[in-house]
Amino acid sequence: MHQKKRRIVILSEGFFGDLEAKTASGLIMYKPEDVVAVIDSTKAGKSVLDVLGFGGDIPIVRDLLDSLKYGPTTLLIGIAPRGGKLPLEWREVIKQALESGLDVISGLHDMLNEDSEFSMLALLKGAKIFDLRESKKYNEVATGDPSLIKAKVVLTVGTDCKTGKMITSIEIARQAKKHGWNSHFVATGQSGMMIAGEGVPIDSVVGDFMSGAIEEFLIEKSHSYDLLSVEGQGTIIHPGYSGVSLALIHGCLPDAMILCHFPGREKIKNYQIKIPPLPEVVKLHEEIAQPIKPSRVVGISLNTQELTEEEAKKQIEKTEEETNLPTVDPVRFGCKRLIGALEFLKR
Amino acid sequence: MHQKKRRIVILSEGFFGDLEAKTASGLIMYKPEDVVAVIDSTKAGKSVLDVLGFGGDIPIVRDLLDSLKYGPTTLLIGIAPRGGKLPLEWREVIKQALESGLDVISGLHDMLNEDSEFSMLALLKGAKIFDLRESKKYNEVATGDPSLIKAKVVLTVGTDCKTGKMITSIEIARQAKKHGWNSHFVATGQSGMMIAGEGVPIDSVVGDFMSGAIEEFLIEKSHSYDLLSVEGQGTIIHPGYSGVSLALIHGCLPDAMILCHFPGREKIKNYQIKIPPLPEVVKLHEEIAQPIKPSRVVGISLNTQELTEEEAKKQIEKTEEETNLPTVDPVRFGCKRLIGALEFLKR
Repeated sequence: MHQKKRRIVILSEGFFGDLEAKTASGLIMYKPEDVVAVIDSTKAGKSVLDVLGFGGDIPIVRDLLDSLKYGPTTLLIGIAPRGGKLPLEWREVIKQALESGLDVISGLHDMLNEDSEFSMLALLKGAKIFDLRESKKYNEVATGDPSLIKAKVVLTVGTDCKTGKMITSIEIARQAKKHGWNSHFVATGQSGMMIAGEGVPIDSVVGDFMSGAIEEFLIEKSHSYDLLSVEGQGTIIHPGYSGVSLALIHGCLPDAMILCHFPGREKIKNYQIKIPPLPEVVKLHEEIAQPIKPSRVVGISLNTQELTEEEAKKQIEKTEEETNLPTVDPVRFGCKRLIGALEFLKR
Repeated sequence: MHQKKRRIVILSEGFFGDLEAKTASGLIMYKPEDVVAVIDSTKAGKSVLDVLGFGGDIPIVRDLLDSLKYGPTTLLIGIAPRGGKLPLEWREVIKQALESGLDVISGLHDMLNEDSEFSMLALLKGAKIFDLRESKKYNEVATGDPSLIKAKVVLTVGTDCKTGKMITSIEIARQAKKHGWNSHFVATGQSGMMIAGEGVPIDSVVGDFMSGAIEEFLIEKSHSYDLLSVEGQGTIIHPGYSGVSLALIHGCLPDAMILCHFPGREKIKNYQIKIPPLPEVVKLHEEIAQPIKPSRVVGISLNTQELTEEEAKKQIEKTEEETNLPTVDPVRFGCKRLIGALEFLKR
């Protein structure tokens, strides 16, 4: 996927800057040099900086044709819609891209490569389609044997989807390097995989092989690193995605977990399910990990993007008191304190 | 799948009578009239009764050719190997069956229909291949809204795989009818689906859609029945399958759970994971159900097949004392007491 230098235009129509477009903002945060334009007609004319507060002068354009003047080589589907299905109105954009010879990278559950119109067009135009969620190759059941993973593993878990698990895991891997770890970020979702150029699309693997898929990846990576910082998915209290979240916990066999939370969110996004108090969520994660490999939640990561700086600091303080755990917002204030909380793993 | 009257020969080579061949014994227990022969060269010449203790004079034969004299219309793959993959030595048997014009029913993860040799042979011979684990059609995320399921739901859960969840769920559905319920068994595994002729192959659905798959099925069935007895899968403390087990709990939104256990089994089968004491397993299930829909474990089902009748009765008594819950072996002594424990759902 990363053989030639990509020049990416991100399709984020109607959603750029929203939580729903986290693939777009994640990639711009970590690989701005790869992005030449963003498509969102509702914000056309602005720059990425105007909308996100970072990302510099990358232009936001009206449509795909408008983006061509920036010389893109690749269209990235930068939205993660509920259920990962392809919205009808995007078909035309994808066809335009392929017709213009652009490669297409997609993290949707719908495999673009299995769509005969797309695959035919790609063939004709010499373009490539990369389906990040392609998961047929995973067919092993987890061994559940922690001794096979030769590195320490820290997994982010959450009170909900979209609470900052990916960014927290990336920041932990980065910061840990400065504290003597040979650390590595392990992506498990399409946004993380775009940034890392590798990973396990865990939510697309069939049930029986989910834990096995991540376990196998960690075993392999553990020969090259001493700390694997694994991106969690969803939450074990999510009505739709809890199975994926638990498979990650039992497939990763983490030495420590970091709980990610979006302060102020009282219910699971798009559901009527109440999020329990953080100490209860911490306890539930530790109890469900226990029978297979005991693991503790050793820190909290808050996404305070909707709070002022002062409010954010207060919230962090309050959360520390409530949970008795080191608490950070890794984007706003860094995540040094989490690395401190992992120090015990060096012994 | 049940349009014409089937005459089934079951492939169970080397495993007939073992827990590994539970598809075979399950089908013979509940639909003996559909089975004309069992293939297991290690027990050829015996009858099914000789090996299982039930199932009458259905013959066990050496190989597929040997079974043809009983006029089968269908070969059933009656073993559920670890990971659901097709053992190499079975390829020949399947080819022989298709060449003889027999349909083939498979519950393996490997889709026989996607194997070009098999599908070509089936086409040539006018035979059909039924892959029970075909799961591409499932692509909805669960709503998590219990009000959409218009029936009461009882789900079996377990301390491990192969503890009697399927049989317990079937027996609950049967017995409940005698106590005034309009009850229905809901299959979630290949053996159960063979018996029921329908169901959701939950462990083959991709992660994000597991809960949604079972929820959708229950919503539909709940318009025709007032008690749905759902077959559980694996256990939430299984290193490989826990994600599937949790997806079932959160997708079924059960009103009550029945915990199934194999007395004497101290570790997860094929793993070094210790099974905690039953009261702890009960508590863990209730705690993980709680945030989405509170549910209690209201009874215990033991598989006492390896105990004498006296030992079994003692074990049941001991388990009742330990858990303070009504305990049965539904095969040996019936499951009336479990139906009693569901009485509160009528209020």
